[in-house]
Amino acid sequence: MYGSRTAGVQTERAMAKIAMKFGGTSVGDLDRIRHVAGLVAKEVSRGHQVAVVVSAMAGETNKLVGWTREISPLHDAREYDVVVAAGEQITAGLLAVALGAIGVSARSWLGWQIPIRTSAMHGSARIEGIDAALLNERLGQGQVAVIAGFQGIAPDHRISTLGRGGSDTSAVAVAAAIEADRCDIYTDVDGVYTTDPRIVPKARRLEKVAFEEMLEMASLGAKVLQTRSVEIAMLYRVPVRVLSTFDPDAGGTLLCDEEDIVEKKPVTGIAYSRDEAKISLMKIPDRPGIAAAIFGPLADAGVNVDMIVQNVSEDGRRTDLTFTCTRSELARALDALEKAGPAIGYREITSDANVAKVSIIGIGMRAHPGVAQTMFRTLSEKGINIKVISTSEIKVSVLISEEYVELAVRALHSAYELDAA
Amino acid sequence: MYGSRTAGVQTERAMAKIAMKFGGTSVGDLDRIRHVAGLVAKEVSRGHQVAVVVSAMAGETNKLVGWTREISPLHDAREYDVVVAAGEQITAGLLAVALGAIGVSARSWLGWQIPIRTSAMHGSARIEGIDAALLNERLGQGQVAVIAGFQGIAPDHRISTLGRGGSDTSAVAVAAAIEADRCDIYTDVDGVYTTDPRIVPKARRLEKVAFEEMLEMASLGAKVLQTRSVEIAMLYRVPVRVLSTFDPDAGGTLLCDEEDIVEKKPVTGIAYSRDEAKISLMKIPDRPGIAAAIFGPLADAGVNVDMIVQNVSEDGRRTDLTFTCTRSELARALDALEKAGPAIGYREITSDANVAKVSIIGIGMRAHPGVAQTMFRTLSEKGINIKVISTSEIKVSVLISEEYVELAVRALHSAYELDAA
Repeated sequence: MYGSRTAGVQTERAMAKIAMKFGGTSVGDLDRIRHVAGLVAKEVSRGHQVAVVVSAMAGETNKLVGWTREISPLHDAREYDVVVAAGEQITAGLLAVALGAIGVSARSWLGWQIPIRTSAMHGSARIEGIDAALLNERLGQGQVAVIAGFQGIAPDHRISTLGRGGSDTSAVAVAAAIEADRCDIYTDVDGVYTTDPRIVPKARRLEKVAFEEMLEMASLGAKVLQTRSVEIAMLYRVPVRVLSTFDPDAGGTLLCDEEDIVEKKPVTGIAYSRDEAKISLMKIPDRPGIAAAIFGPLADAGVNVDMIVQNVSEDGRRTDLTFTCTRSELARALDALEKAGPAIGYREITSDANVAKVSIIGIGMRAHPGVAQTMFRTLSEKGINIKVISTSEIKVSVLISEEYVELAVRALHSAYELDAA
Repeated sequence: MYGSRTAGVQTERAMAKIAMKFGGTSVGDLDRIRHVAGLVAKEVSRGHQVAVVVSAMAGETNKLVGWTREISPLHDAREYDVVVAAGEQITAGLLAVALGAIGVSARSWLGWQIPIRTSAMHGSARIEGIDAALLNERLGQGQVAVIAGFQGIAPDHRISTLGRGGSDTSAVAVAAAIEADRCDIYTDVDGVYTTDPRIVPKARRLEKVAFEEMLEMASLGAKVLQTRSVEIAMLYRVPVRVLSTFDPDAGGTLLCDEEDIVEKKPVTGIAYSRDEAKISLMKIPDRPGIAAAIFGPLADAGVNVDMIVQNVSEDGRRTDLTFTCTRSELARALDALEKAGPAIGYREITSDANVAKVSIIGIGMRAHPGVAQTMFRTLSEKGINIKVISTSEIKVSVLISEEYVELAVRALHSAYELDAA
């Protein structure tokens, strides 16, 4: 699919192959695009082969999405892709010009030119393969490849886009395809933090984070990387670094294998998400097949169910079931459940959109029992009620009232000794 | 190349195939794009098959060109094309969405998707061929084709653009390729006028104009249609109408064969161009090969020489030569001539950028002798000195001081009885 890779994190070769990715704020105006050209030139001057993936200039994507929605909220996703992909196209051309202006050989590449093949799901397509032959040929000739992120070509031979944040995924997939020695994600923060520094000023930058941890963090609300990009990095063992465009020497964070992390704290980071809603079905029959009767219609309606908790039945006949989904899916979920009411046989539905999810994540959790207990005790001491709990091997998530989010994150950050000195 | 056509202007069939083109002001904002969708829907409701060619939203192209130039005046033309072509891409997607919103089946087409194949001259490419198979298939299914104008795909498999105003050419070439019954060019004026109405308030709209006349008018400064689009229309006998987007029932102008024009006045229209510069080489040797010694270096420098006049040599040994080019090429022309100085052997070079060209155009000129004489007398009566003259079968152009342009155009408009009653 993306080319094969045998080794894990590699020590950098004298002449390495590097993928660099710059997000919207990093290429927000012409001066910043020139600054980015300078960062690329620096890697070239070190003798490296460089593929650069760029986002649309900050604000462009929102403008284009806004126009499309204003003309029709029910627009054809294929046309949405045509309009929105223009943003990355513009940046790619401008950066290639900026590189040429400082004497660096470069050319722009659009998704259909490489090609970056994706699934047919316009608006939120998945990358299915990248033909690296042309790219590798040009990289070998010393030409920098400036690649429009976020876009590809669908089986219908039309432009597809990967969904918001998709340029991260483009970058890691390109890195995997060309078998890059590393993929540097330049952004407006200088790395991955133990939690959101806007909530916890004492949040610390992580020097290293395991792929598995980053995957949980991204899917549980940390916005620094798109979840799919971490999946690909993990699958193809692409060493990813998160760096600041405006202070590239500030250190950054390296995504790596678990084995490469020596000191494994029980908890590495704390994530939160406000985009949560809770639905409870009261007094449903406690019989085999009841879960299928509930979640089948929800899946058909395109609702992604996240946390699920079912109470023990008191009398062996009726019980309650609670689950969560995103707020934007709440109306659709309630509609589907109402229609399926007779088949399910609940007494009542209640819903709550004023909830949030707070999660602790850490590969060290495997070796440290009692980690969850610290979380529950800490929240209890602050008088925060836990509505739903969900766990995996390396994370514990709880659903709480939204108003307690900041308090909970700060308390947990201290409880797990993550605060900076 | 574009498909063949045997008949000339055709009477409209009950179910016709129509190409429509909308310029930048016609799609200048979302409301206007909705208005355009309404005009397209009207043709569809009449049972016609419709291909629509769109420009970038007014201002977009200037913005994108400005960005590219600001980063580097010496930008790679291939990257310029990548950046600038995004403008038409956005409009095409938005119009397809707007058509969908009012229930009209439509899809956008980019240059590379059709494909519209062009020459390799990025930034000012020529259309070399359009594969109409896919378009015709979809048109036959009742789907409106919304085509991004101004762009194509070059032999290097990269996006090319046709130069400013190129969407007219895209539209006529598409009309030729799909063998459309007519090509309607919607713009912000309601047709082709006898001259620029901003200079001559009494200018009249022409109901019909011959392809040959329109070709001269466009290349001599009339801005209503791009020259190349008229060439293609003439070559493939595409009946072109120029209409107002904001008042489509106002009449318009039909481009047609000479034979379809019954009343042939000696002069049909008056064009002018301020983008002129004059260069004179004094006392050059009057010997065979001298023209090649002068114009060879100019051609190599990419200077398009327009009018040329050489005086009769007084002594058979030395003479003067004057020619014109565009103002933007003046510096380059002088530079080339200076370098070629020793080979040419002139005594002095003089140049003048404060000149303008005024032209009278009319197929009736062929049958009416003395047409040029009226022009010379009229200008003389106003005290306007003629610096250079150039003629063809259906036009006479004169170079005069720029300050006299308005006066000359108005005087000629009256002299040839073109003023509206």
